[in-house]
Amino acid sequence: MRRVTGHPATSMDDYQLNTTTFIRHAARTYPEQEIVYYTPAGLGRYTYAQAHRRMMRLANALESLGVAPGDRVGVLDWNSHRHFELYFAIPGTGAVLLQMNLRISTDDLSYVGQHSEVSYICVDESLLPIAEAIAGNLPQVKGFIVMSDRPVSEIATTLSPVYGYEELLADAPEEYNWPMVDETSAYSACYTSGTTGRPKGVYYSHRNIHLHSLTMAAYLGINSDDCALVIVPMFHGQSWGLFYSCVMMGAKLIFPGRYTAEEITPLVDLMIAEQVTIAHGAPAIFQPMLHYIRTLDDKPDFSRARFLSGATEPPLSMMRGFQELTGAEIIHAYGATETTPLVAVNYRLKPSVRDRLTPDEQWDLKRKQGLPVTGVDVRVLDEDGQDVNHDGTTVGEICMAGPWIAGRYHDAPASEEAFRDGYWHSGDAGTIDPDGYLKVVDRIKDVIKSGGEWISSIDMENAIAGHPNVLDAAVVGLPHDKWQERPLALVVTKEDAQVTEDDLRELLLERFARWQLPDEIRFVAEIPKTSVGKTNKKTIVAEYHGLYTQGTLNE
Amino acid sequence: MRRVTGHPATSMDDYQLNTTTFIRHAARTYPEQEIVYYTPAGLGRYTYAQAHRRMMRLANALESLGVAPGDRVGVLDWNSHRHFELYFAIPGTGAVLLQMNLRISTDDLSYVGQHSEVSYICVDESLLPIAEAIAGNLPQVKGFIVMSDRPVSEIATTLSPVYGYEELLADAPEEYNWPMVDETSAYSACYTSGTTGRPKGVYYSHRNIHLHSLTMAAYLGINSDDCALVIVPMFHGQSWGLFYSCVMMGAKLIFPGRYTAEEITPLVDLMIAEQVTIAHGAPAIFQPMLHYIRTLDDKPDFSRARFLSGATEPPLSMMRGFQELTGAEIIHAYGATETTPLVAVNYRLKPSVRDRLTPDEQWDLKRKQGLPVTGVDVRVLDEDGQDVNHDGTTVGEICMAGPWIAGRYHDAPASEEAFRDGYWHSGDAGTIDPDGYLKVVDRIKDVIKSGGEWISSIDMENAIAGHPNVLDAAVVGLPHDKWQERPLALVVTKEDAQVTEDDLRELLLERFARWQLPDEIRFVAEIPKTSVGKTNKKTIVAEYHGLYTQGTLNE
Repeated sequence: MRRVTGHPATSMDDYQLNTTTFIRHAARTYPEQEIVYYTPAGLGRYTYAQAHRRMMRLANALESLGVAPGDRVGVLDWNSHRHFELYFAIPGTGAVLLQMNLRISTDDLSYVGQHSEVSYICVDESLLPIAEAIAGNLPQVKGFIVMSDRPVSEIATTLSPVYGYEELLADAPEEYNWPMVDETSAYSACYTSGTTGRPKGVYYSHRNIHLHSLTMAAYLGINSDDCALVIVPMFHGQSWGLFYSCVMMGAKLIFPGRYTAEEITPLVDLMIAEQVTIAHGAPAIFQPMLHYIRTLDDKPDFSRARFLSGATEPPLSMMRGFQELTGAEIIHAYGATETTPLVAVNYRLKPSVRDRLTPDEQWDLKRKQGLPVTGVDVRVLDEDGQDVNHDGTTVGEICMAGPWIAGRYHDAPASEEAFRDGYWHSGDAGTIDPDGYLKVVDRIKDVIKSGGEWISSIDMENAIAGHPNVLDAAVVGLPHDKWQERPLALVVTKEDAQVTEDDLRELLLERFARWQLPDEIRFVAEIPKTSVGKTNKKTIVAEYHGLYTQGTLNE
Repeated sequence: MRRVTGHPATSMDDYQLNTTTFIRHAARTYPEQEIVYYTPAGLGRYTYAQAHRRMMRLANALESLGVAPGDRVGVLDWNSHRHFELYFAIPGTGAVLLQMNLRISTDDLSYVGQHSEVSYICVDESLLPIAEAIAGNLPQVKGFIVMSDRPVSEIATTLSPVYGYEELLADAPEEYNWPMVDETSAYSACYTSGTTGRPKGVYYSHRNIHLHSLTMAAYLGINSDDCALVIVPMFHGQSWGLFYSCVMMGAKLIFPGRYTAEEITPLVDLMIAEQVTIAHGAPAIFQPMLHYIRTLDDKPDFSRARFLSGATEPPLSMMRGFQELTGAEIIHAYGATETTPLVAVNYRLKPSVRDRLTPDEQWDLKRKQGLPVTGVDVRVLDEDGQDVNHDGTTVGEICMAGPWIAGRYHDAPASEEAFRDGYWHSGDAGTIDPDGYLKVVDRIKDVIKSGGEWISSIDMENAIAGHPNVLDAAVVGLPHDKWQERPLALVVTKEDAQVTEDDLRELLLERFARWQLPDEIRFVAEIPKTSVGKTNKKTIVAEYHGLYTQGTLNE
């Protein structure tokens, strides 16, 4: 795209977009708005004004420890009010909040600490073992700030030197003169854990999060009547940036601390008690919520609620269940660590499709990732870099550009493949339908490329697994002399259950063209899995590698 | 505020914010969304996709005429679809859309054309007399583009050279490769007509309107189910930027062409027929709408509507009337040409005040200008540049900073007084109450400065005029030896009606402290007015100038 400079403007274009703008606005305009947070002794409550005063103390404390603009300060914590305070105090001084994912290996987490050259680490008392496990690999760390309701003197740890978060705040002045941080400075960093290689650093700018927050607020209609439960971990893509949008618009916030999908009851009870209207997470968290809600005699009223669901396609039964039992709308959204993440959202079907589709068709459409949001340029490109037809079936790679999309990884010179021609190439395979709705069908590497057309292995696996007698299924592309690749399906049937190849072909024809069907369907005892339980497609391809080339050669 | 630079980020921070982003998004994601517009032959209708194709033709046509990035292209038009097309095509090429206010004197309009060095003028056929009246003063203009549904060859004009808008489009290619315009380039310019001196140029940057549009969309909750009637003239602060927010979010748009408050019936009928949910204007337009609605047997259902009201405080009867008869919410908002304009908005009372106030108190609060929007730093400062107490009564000057606030006037070196210490000093006198609500009480120059405190002359005039027997009232500050200034009230009573000074003092004590009451209340036959019918305070002050100094000296 050619670049053009026009006539000078008279606007305050030097006024920087940054996180300080949000919190100062919230503290000044919604000082009384409530923030609820988990503590071991029960729920705590304070206001935006009080949170802001603690943030100012924290900023003073960080500066007194020698934290300077540009320094990386790590945080190892659940979704807590202190984590929230750090999300404004650290970038507010010009430093970078390093998101430390407590679920990755200590080896990878050490790498993240080394690569980012983290200077201080703030760690919740309950996570001290993780900090202790990596401390030896991070000799550059100047100190550890322990977050606890107990005095730091009572806490036993091998970390050194150690500071108490609350003690630092108590000793620091309550007034802090927030500087104007350049909007292109990094405010936070999150390392993305790909399936291959070391985690790669995405350093989000202040400008990035400012624009993202405003856009999320506009698309979800967030306002001061809302109450948001911060479910997505704050070390995971800044919890999708949701709490920033809420601060911007003066909404009530809830930080639930630690929770698990296995013990979902307290989280749902909290949602009911505080009348939550905004929440976000993966189906893995919403599904057990719904199971629990089904057991309740009095169904909660979530009729004002917008629950953002990401990571994977939300099951239809889950979306309908929430709507029918509670009135809540489950909104499918799409993004990645590299995209802050909001890129597409499926809220309020377009009037044109609502008028045209039956209720069932509308539900089906709501499973897609949705329409791109304004400000992000989303394209689905074929292997020649051309836009695929927007017919809802032609598959290409989803590529994105925009102010909150990553343009590179930090200090990772081998990443040119993902960032080229002005777009981030996501590795996601997708389609766009004539109405503009984006659907992710697969990872590009798992898509089957047959005769110039692409077939989604995931869609086909899901379709086969939809047969009541099928326990598990895997679909891979095998090399083929004539068609480049052709599908092979492996199927595990349920014990004592019968399925024939014809049954499955008939089932597949409901959703696939005849030419897309697998050349072979094989019934097997089990599907090879990786250590984390995912289908190991590499092993399958290696095992059946010559199946179709052999056949072709023998013709 | 000290400025700080931190760690480099990996975001696409070079991705520019500009108007092209909106329209490309809308044309791609909401191509079927409808735009309705006035034509002499009846309503026209087309879609975002069609509008975008005409904009691309227009951009090609402008370039073929030699319009280059940075050039100023003037537009003299009502609220039309062509005006809309120009608002994307001109800035899309990197040029500047010069807003030409058809209501100011031809002398001032000539000055605007000269000062901006306008290179082309696009003029609606109905406004040719204005273009013809100023053309002689603008020798630098290279041509006039006449907008009409008739062939340009049939149109008689003294302008030269003349091009037909539709002919230019017909001859131009339909594909245009929008450049990426630097976000700090001006996209449009509007000259503000103060009471003194020549109009002053505000040149809005692309960045400015991008951020403003997103913010307005977030605060009004604009989405693709909305239908917006573009009432505020598009030559008046880009119609408050409302249509840009609508394009961003894919809402339906209606351009009503020319209308007047005197003949409001067609406009209301249009709102009913198209089920308008968003509109904006001054009470001068909403009042006659309400009068007409009162006459209708079937009251329209505007229960989804948010009608933005600016310029002056909306009368309570008007706000309540719309709510009770139609369900529409009249939302008071605040801004100026220098602020794009959205600075404060009074939509959805804060939960904390809603819980505390009676319904009548809530209505009263809704008359205020509202809460500042996120991104704008709004302060009310005393004469020493310090924040006044946020007590709802202490008056100061409203000062603003932010990405869509003007930092200067274009090529107007004498404007330092208004732009200093990082803020635009609006000249509006206002208060902030303990809940954060902003209220404009007066123009600073009309505020009465008494003993270090400020008294609103407008509030006092309104209070006196509220007496059933009072026809007109004026309140001015007169020089006072001890108190600097003290109020004088002039009152015109209704014919055959009786009011005493004591009646009025009693009335004023309901809203004012005793020390604020006028030293003298004089009953007069008439109040001096300016040529446009406003109270001529200068004349009053000149006439009564020595009233209080004399008294003090004689003590």
